Amino acid sequence: MMAERKGKVEVCFSPALFSDFRNDEAVVVIVDILRATSAIVTAFMNGVRHIIPVATLDEALAYKKKGVLVAAERNGIVRDFADFGNSPYNFRREIIEGRDIVYSTTNGTHSIMMARESYRVIIGAYLNLEALVDFIFAAGRDVLILCAGWKNKFNLEDSLFAGALAEAVLKNNQFTTQCDSTYASLDLWNLAKPDMMGYIEKAAQRHRLKNNNLDDVIEYCHTLNLTRLIPALKDNYLTQIENI
Amino acid sequence: MMAERKGKVEVCFSPALFSDFRNDEAVVVIVDILRATSAIVTAFMNGVRHIIPVATLDEALAYKKKGVLVAAERNGIVRDFADFGNSPYNFRREIIEGRDIVYSTTNGTHSIMMARESYRVIIGAYLNLEALVDFIFAAGRDVLILCAGWKNKFNLEDSLFAGALAEAVLKNNQFTTQCDSTYASLDLWNLAKPDMMGYIEKAAQRHRLKNNNLDDVIEYCHTLNLTRLIPALKDNYLTQIENI
Repeated sequence: MMAERKGKVEVCFSPALFSDFRNDEAVVVIVDILRATSAIVTAFMNGVRHIIPVATLDEALAYKKKGVLVAAERNGIVRDFADFGNSPYNFRREIIEGRDIVYSTTNGTHSIMMARESYRVIIGAYLNLEALVDFIFAAGRDVLILCAGWKNKFNLEDSLFAGALAEAVLKNNQFTTQCDSTYASLDLWNLAKPDMMGYIEKAAQRHRLKNNNLDDVIEYCHTLNLTRLIPALKDNYLTQIENI
Repeated sequence: MMAERKGKVEVCFSPALFSDFRNDEAVVVIVDILRATSAIVTAFMNGVRHIIPVATLDEALAYKKKGVLVAAERNGIVRDFADFGNSPYNFRREIIEGRDIVYSTTNGTHSIMMARESYRVIIGAYLNLEALVDFIFAAGRDVLILCAGWKNKFNLEDSLFAGALAEAVLKNNQFTTQCDSTYASLDLWNLAKPDMMGYIEKAAQRHRLKNNNLDDVIEYCHTLNLTRLIPALKDNYLTQIENI
């Protein structure tokens, strides 16, 4: 499929930089390791039908009034009207199986929707890393790894994951990179991976979660390959990639 | 001066993220190592009086018609009407001593002007690193290191310098950081510094310069402490900090 040219791997460190990286021919992988994309992958592991990302709390509240399950947080704190916050542990099978969830977060859901004109928008986490790599190989296209960051700022946990994913993709010589953010991600990942939990100690988001007693999920969110499921955007909702 | 709280060190990887880092109480250090800030520092070493950064080529051309010396490039290429491009080697003493220069570049000059509401905007390069550190210590304020990047994208050479400067500032325990971009810069700098010229091989800007036969300046732009001069923004022009 890529006989003519190799697939480009690029990393975008912030949604605020997306317009400068925009590539509608690419597979875009959305990354918000602590915690939105880890939580979304977990919800699909536990049988959710669709997840509808919405940008504003008002939209989320409107769905709630219609009886839809709602996950909504700002700054890590679950909103009063919501059924769930942003912890993967919220999305238990007995509550969500076969149901739809509306989802609004500080950083993650906005990034999903801004990439919607791309060839395919998929949800990335350590939990489904190997499946992502296989999907990217099969697609044979450019890859843009879009880190949700924190309020438009670079963050360590998403960048490290970008390095992990880029490393796995670049092992296939049908892919290449000339992108400084990708090189930086690869170097940071290689520095961090011998002791990921030690390295992540310095991440600002780890301190935010700890201050709110929400840091119980950090190790889970760095667990590799618990599932082959890939949530992907179809129209305005996320579904399993097989359903597209 | 900072008895009450320590000075924050932050790194902003792109002018497109500046509004999310904006801190008008801070000393803002503008960084465009290859090549604008290295060239500006060199111009002051060679006796330029003022440098007037302008955003557009039209503005630069208007100054040219009034007889002012003009440095103007886009994508590394000097513009036809300009007296200089963006190479530090352009700014020779016999041409510039005692004169003013209008300066318009792809990335650097825009970053300088966007920070102008800050306590102080200063021009940073390896060439004046130690002087920057001493100025920052004397100011006793927050420090924001603003990387000019490349067309709003993260770049390696500016981020490495941000790590070098942050490391030197953070040796003084009156300064602290909780900023993920600063941690990333420190780690990348420590990875690169044993063989800076080897590491910088992979930077995209190194390849752009090489393709235009402009890479003769790379080693010079990574030379430490050739001067104590610090160019700083006063109103709409750059002058030596002692003149403010």
